[in-house]
Amino acid sequence: MKSCGVIVEYNPFHNGHQYHLEMAHEASQADVVVAVMSGNFLQRGEPAILDKWTRAKEAIENGADLVIELPVASAVQSADYFAKGAVRVLHELGVSSLCFGTDSEEELDYDQFARFNEENQNEINETFQSLNHLGLSYPQQMNEVYRLLLPDWPVSNQSPNHILGMSYAKENQKYAKPMSLFPIKRQVSNYHDKELNGTKFASATAIREAVLADKFEDLADVIPVETLNDLKGNDPIDWEKAWPFLKYQLMVNSEEELRSIYQMVEGIEYRLKEMVLKANSFEEFVTLVKTKRFTWTRIQRLCVYVLLQLTEAEVTQSWEQPYLRILGFNKVGQVFMKQQRKMVSSPVISNLKKEHQKIAELDIRAGLVYELITGKNNKQDFYRIPHIKK
Amino acid sequence: MKSCGVIVEYNPFHNGHQYHLEMAHEASQADVVVAVMSGNFLQRGEPAILDKWTRAKEAIENGADLVIELPVASAVQSADYFAKGAVRVLHELGVSSLCFGTDSEEELDYDQFARFNEENQNEINETFQSLNHLGLSYPQQMNEVYRLLLPDWPVSNQSPNHILGMSYAKENQKYAKPMSLFPIKRQVSNYHDKELNGTKFASATAIREAVLADKFEDLADVIPVETLNDLKGNDPIDWEKAWPFLKYQLMVNSEEELRSIYQMVEGIEYRLKEMVLKANSFEEFVTLVKTKRFTWTRIQRLCVYVLLQLTEAEVTQSWEQPYLRILGFNKVGQVFMKQQRKMVSSPVISNLKKEHQKIAELDIRAGLVYELITGKNNKQDFYRIPHIKK
Repeated sequence: MKSCGVIVEYNPFHNGHQYHLEMAHEASQADVVVAVMSGNFLQRGEPAILDKWTRAKEAIENGADLVIELPVASAVQSADYFAKGAVRVLHELGVSSLCFGTDSEEELDYDQFARFNEENQNEINETFQSLNHLGLSYPQQMNEVYRLLLPDWPVSNQSPNHILGMSYAKENQKYAKPMSLFPIKRQVSNYHDKELNGTKFASATAIREAVLADKFEDLADVIPVETLNDLKGNDPIDWEKAWPFLKYQLMVNSEEELRSIYQMVEGIEYRLKEMVLKANSFEEFVTLVKTKRFTWTRIQRLCVYVLLQLTEAEVTQSWEQPYLRILGFNKVGQVFMKQQRKMVSSPVISNLKKEHQKIAELDIRAGLVYELITGKNNKQDFYRIPHIKK
Repeated sequence: MKSCGVIVEYNPFHNGHQYHLEMAHEASQADVVVAVMSGNFLQRGEPAILDKWTRAKEAIENGADLVIELPVASAVQSADYFAKGAVRVLHELGVSSLCFGTDSEEELDYDQFARFNEENQNEINETFQSLNHLGLSYPQQMNEVYRLLLPDWPVSNQSPNHILGMSYAKENQKYAKPMSLFPIKRQVSNYHDKELNGTKFASATAIREAVLADKFEDLADVIPVETLNDLKGNDPIDWEKAWPFLKYQLMVNSEEELRSIYQMVEGIEYRLKEMVLKANSFEEFVTLVKTKRFTWTRIQRLCVYVLLQLTEAEVTQSWEQPYLRILGFNKVGQVFMKQQRKMVSSPVISNLKKEHQKIAELDIRAGLVYELITGKNNKQDFYRIPHIKK
């Protein structure tokens, strides 16, 4: 079976995602499309608007054949680590191609870019070091490196999908048998667009804004019916709903305790503890904490680590004991999984039980906290079985 | 000035407390009555129904001359440690007598009892050890010791006030110049009475039940008008309001992290983590966790330590750096405080500022969490000044 992977968050699943799945089939000529999806917390450091089971179901009902959860220790990460975790899952499953969206105006040859990275690692590192004095954030500094080393290549576009695309390409290049890459142009909407625009495509950001403002009227045009029903039937989750718990945790953790949290560096713990007493909302809190080096997204991710009390040791350990958690599949996905399962070296979990407690510890914790934030009895892990399309 | 101390919680302040203050004046012939009061968390391990400032105001308006906060590290403790902290405050202030309520049916000579304790410490310890095999809770085992050693004395009454009275007496006896003790009989209601009984006295338990059931009609008979207005104007706080935060903390703390919490012993952390996933309320949680050795009250206290993330080191350090926090006073209390202040060796705080952050750290933390539980902007510590009766 010819397979193609997609790396996704579906926050929530919309027509653009459906188009992406169609393009993945078409461009790669694959029989099966495998989606590696973030669980209940997302790459940019926020809780998902709907839980992972709901989002996986939406995907399976609208073109994905198999959905695998990207563990929280890889999902809530900057582009390179996010890519590392997701690409590993696809390689473990023997997926032969990768299709991803890009917002790049000009065409970048991602494979060529990945090879350049592999062959010039030292020069890249040295150039990066030489820019340390500028006090830039990591993505800004990396962008500056590429602008200097590859002045004629379209590498310095700062759109999130483009940055992720470059990370996927670099990570993929590290494997003996890299996947074929199929970048596809996004349709119409831009990643950060905040308005619905009257077409059948809208950004997830615009969709979330409409949902939070309780404006469901125009959403039917831009999301599948499953997503519309899910959004109508569930309280949408955002950081403000988790804010009381984050605030509480920052109040009771001493600076010393906060220093044991993953990525708590450069004394930012003092700033977090100072500002939590001044902020009346999560948005206000991040605005107060934000600096040139600590971007909005970096702070959001740090807040997820605090909320889940993730330590450096726990995150590292999670990377070292990967597992594949199946969230949903259709008949094609089932056949593919059955065929590939024997070559997968990590444990495959389709019904999480007590015996998986250790390996899935951080994801179980993330699920418990997510359930608590929803305020409903909505078990996320033990004894939940994948969504199966009839 | 002749002074008398009372050790109190006022949860909330009622007519029985007012009577106690009158009796304290009368029995001791004191000019000034000083109340040492638990702050926002109480001896039996629960958040107070109203915050410390509100309760201190009620006391000052109804007969107390000066209210000092008992720090959380001493307040949320079994009888002996609670007594140790409170008696120390009174001795620091040079208070010459102590008046406390007792439910004992028969009269116990508390001074004689305290002397017996001092003189027979070894025998008491040995008898206590010899009963270890019975698997009793600490108070039950201590009770058994006294029943064996003092068969003819009325020491084995298990009412909370009687137990506290014995602890006050034992602690007081350790000072070179002990205070004179004035035990007084409680009026009419029993400590645990759950019903209002048509007299002007009711137990705090019965009053809290009426408030939580929103039955304010009969309360005017048993509480002063200040308390009635406070209870009508504020959402009453109880453990159920703090339950989401406790649940969250128990979910994200690993067993190992929980072991650093004060009094987390005998592997109870495993039981807490197991039961938190099964319980749908705090009451259900404690019911599930309860064992012969871990009584309801002991578990409640442990839950406060988890909620506030108090470690052994923090509690010990707090004991070693006492301070006196003034919550309220009238003219008499002001004169007394001015007169005694020079002989007090610990810092006296009437307006808590940044410079007190270190010494008052645990109480500030308790105040922040309490404020969070109330869900209102209701700052508890920085820049709050004592209630002054005009």
